[in-house]
Amino acid sequence: MPKIFVLRWGHRPKRDARLTTHVILAARALGASGLMLSDIKDEKIKEMIEKITKNWGGPFLFEMGTPWKKVIKDWKEKGGIVVHLTAYGENIQTSDVLQRIKTLEKDILIIVGSQKVPREFFSETISDFNVAIGNQPHSECASMAVFLDRFFEGTELTRSFENVKVKIICQKRGKKIVRNN
Amino acid sequence: MPKIFVLRWGHRPKRDARLTTHVILAARALGASGLMLSDIKDEKIKEMIEKITKNWGGPFLFEMGTPWKKVIKDWKEKGGIVVHLTAYGENIQTSDVLQRIKTLEKDILIIVGSQKVPREFFSETISDFNVAIGNQPHSECASMAVFLDRFFEGTELTRSFENVKVKIICQKRGKKIVRNN
Repeated sequence: MPKIFVLRWGHRPKRDARLTTHVILAARALGASGLMLSDIKDEKIKEMIEKITKNWGGPFLFEMGTPWKKVIKDWKEKGGIVVHLTAYGENIQTSDVLQRIKTLEKDILIIVGSQKVPREFFSETISDFNVAIGNQPHSECASMAVFLDRFFEGTELTRSFENVKVKIICQKRGKKIVRNN
Repeated sequence: MPKIFVLRWGHRPKRDARLTTHVILAARALGASGLMLSDIKDEKIKEMIEKITKNWGGPFLFEMGTPWKKVIKDWKEKGGIVVHLTAYGENIQTSDVLQRIKTLEKDILIIVGSQKVPREFFSETISDFNVAIGNQPHSECASMAVFLDRFFEGTELTRSFENVKVKIICQKRGKKIVRNN
């Protein structure tokens, strides 16, 4: 199964703190292997995700500060493809875009913007695919979640993590946690 | 097809403004019929969603300020069921919980919390089902997205809205919008 990483573009530390946190948590919970926060460093976000992987397990790569063009150049040099999630792209439901992506069997870098993204993101030089999780105004966190769930076909929800200190035991009622200390 | 509404609990106007906005946008984009922001009024959120439905179409119900217990009481009196999304619940992937929910063929109120939710949410008196989109720390926006996409089986992404002024025409490259004025 190919690996998926996420490029989070346009993060503004104050304004986007909680949303970027949610994007990272959702990426990890839904099978992505890591996230690159491009162009900016945000130590609080770094601490948050380090705390999560320390307690709930990993591996989950987190990098920050690299200019987005370099992240994409390096990614493509390693043979990966780039999928830009945007409401303007090909509808994942009505087109065969997901099938075309899967057929390539290559690792994927998903771009999710925070602010309005540069026009360049839509072009062949950057994105191999522009994919829309529907063509309505949306949340990048929700779009990414649906893309990951459809790409991994649900298997992401049974994936096990390594070096787990805290684990939820799922049940019909109440809250159950197990700790390995 | 049953209808789904979302109860957003624990909204704090400053801290949660953008996240609640994303939850509402995702709910609308992914087939929910409306959202109740319980216990609090937030005029900015109301303006945002009114602007969205005015331009991009509806219907999408938005209500705010009603105490959560009353929202749930009213919902149950109308014959609806309540699904609480929580990482502690039954895993949507490894259990038959989604099938059990679907078999009932009843309208659904999804509860998504913002802060840590009251214990009561897990009990039979409130939630008919506690559903986990995986048992990892998560984003309620992402969890809701996956639940809606699985419940509606993708049909939500082709749903058409009424009174549409602005519409995206999906395409492989670039951005295309049509306006009906």
